[in-house]
Parts: sequence; C-alpha cells; structure tokens
Amino acid sequence: MQKHTTQPVRQVIESKTFPSAAVEFLRHPLPSQLVTINTNGSPQVTIMWFKYEDGALFFTTTTDRIKFRNIQKDPRAVFTVLDPTNMYKWVTVRGKLSIDKREPTAFYRGLAEHYLTGDSLAAWKETAVMDKRTVLKLTPRTFARWDFRSKRLSGNC
Amino acid sequence: MQKHTTQPVRQVIESKTFPSAAVEFLRHPLPSQLVTINTNGSPQVTIMWFKYEDGALFFTTTTDRIKFRNIQKDPRAVFTVLDPTNMYKWVTVRGKLSIDKREPTAFYRGLAEHYLTGDSLAAWKETAVMDKRTVLKLTPRTFARWDFRSKRLSGNC
Repeated sequence: MQKHTTQPVRQVIESKTFPSAAVEFLRHPLPSQLVTINTNGSPQVTIMWFKYEDGALFFTTTTDRIKFRNIQKDPRAVFTVLDPTNMYKWVTVRGKLSIDKREPTAFYRGLAEHYLTGDSLAAWKETAVMDKRTVLKLTPRTFARWDFRSKRLSGNC
Repeated sequence: MQKHTTQPVRQVIESKTFPSAAVEFLRHPLPSQLVTINTNGSPQVTIMWFKYEDGALFFTTTTDRIKFRNIQKDPRAVFTVLDPTNMYKWVTVRGKLSIDKREPTAFYRGLAEHYLTGDSLAAWKETAVMDKRTVLKLTPRTFARWDFRSKRLSGNC
C-alpha cells in the first residue's frame, strides 16, 4: 500500500439508515469483517463475503461454525468494510444477527457470482460446502462511516 | 475491487509465533482492525495504524477513548490485517492489550511517518492530538493467517 498524501482529519457520521453513498460503496464485492462474541466473552472475527439488501446485510455460514454458535447465545455483531484503496473510507454497522429464512444454497451461489469470476467461480462450484448452510441477516442498530463528501481524511489514532 | 480469478480453498495456519512471511506483510503501512470488548459485552471495532515489533503489535490512542476504557476492564483483543489487493491474504492475532511504557508522542510521530507522506504528513503534524496519548501493546496469544505459500485462496463462508 502506498503512503497517503491526503490531509487527515477525524470526522465520523453516525446515522440510523444507510445513505446512498454508503449503499453504492457496499454494492462492490469487498471483504467485510464480521465480529461476534465468543461464549467466553472474547471477540471473534471472520472475514466474510456479504450482500447489502434493503438496509440490511446478509451473509452465509454453516451451522457448525463458531460464529453461528456464538450468535445463538449473543446475537450482537459489528460489521466493517474498508475501501481497499483508501483506509480512511469505511463503514461500520452495529446490530444483531438472526437466521434469514431464504434458501441458503441459492443465496450462496449468488454471492459467489458477486465475488468470483472465471476459474475462481468454476473452482468454487466444485468445492463449495452446501451442507448445514444457513443465511444470516444483520439488522442494523447504528451505522457509522467517514464522510465520503469530505476530501480530508483521518489517521485514526 | 475486481472480482477474483484465483482458485478458492479454505486453509488456515495457526501458530504461536509470527512466521517471516507474516512479519514482512506486517511491515507495510496497512490498515488494521482492532476489536475490544465494550463494558456491556458487545464488540468495539477501531481501524488503527499499527507497528509490528519483535513479535508484538503496537498502537497509540488517548486515554479518553472508548477502547482505552474497555481494556481497563477486559484486555482481550483481536487484531486483523487484510491485504488490500487480495482479501484472501490476512493475519489475525488474538491476545491481550496493555499499556506500553515508551514515550507516546515519539511513537506517534514514527507511526505517522510510516503511514503518511507529503502534505498528509505535514497536515498531521499540525492537527495530531498529543494530549492524554498512550501506547498500547498487543501481546499475542494465538496467531492465524492464510497460507501465503499457497496460490489457492478461499471464499470464507
């Protein structure tokens, strides 16, 4: 990563809804980090594919994974996405995870097509784990982002 | 971000120490995500500058920030860095945060010089908050990364 030449300033916007600039940002196939709480109270981080849809975020996992077990006990989660080309452009969503009733394998296929292409997508089709698969929905409680309108950016220390 | 054309496979290496490939990766001025635990047990995420040094990770914050207050009650934290050009290349460190005794303003200056250059660094010098500043050390307990030797990468679902 190159060093940054933009001017830093601390500026966070908090809101209850997703502004259009954030929605546009979240439509890209970016990596997200999803944090849940382990049963011993420590944080658990997973790098996740995600889909933004109508003010919520959707993920897929299998019911034998740690994060699925975690949310049975404590559904609170934090979701973060960083712009890979600009570490000062990000969104964070705090909320609760719940099981979404949609068909998991179709959702997973759509997600793979969003993130992968060519040989990668073909390989995914051969190796994807469909057994015990489920869809998770993150219902936002609060939402924070850097001000996309601002050209002044912050070193967050 | 472009769609990925690499072949996905799930493969994680866990270890107690930082292998040289991870050390090399962590020497770059990459954004990290540092998770602490709020007093109500929910996760708290901050995007942080960091410095790798002799098997530990160092950060700076001020003593009036949430994460500083959090670690007084529960020092457990998770640190994650993603390669901005490859979401399947990442390291995660679980450990405990403590206050490091080194001089905070000199550390912060060095960190800014690691991450910023030109006008950005000049602007940082004018606006950097030095009051109540402290240095945090993350002492690793466990360490996980994708296998950097492998060209096969995973969609992490």
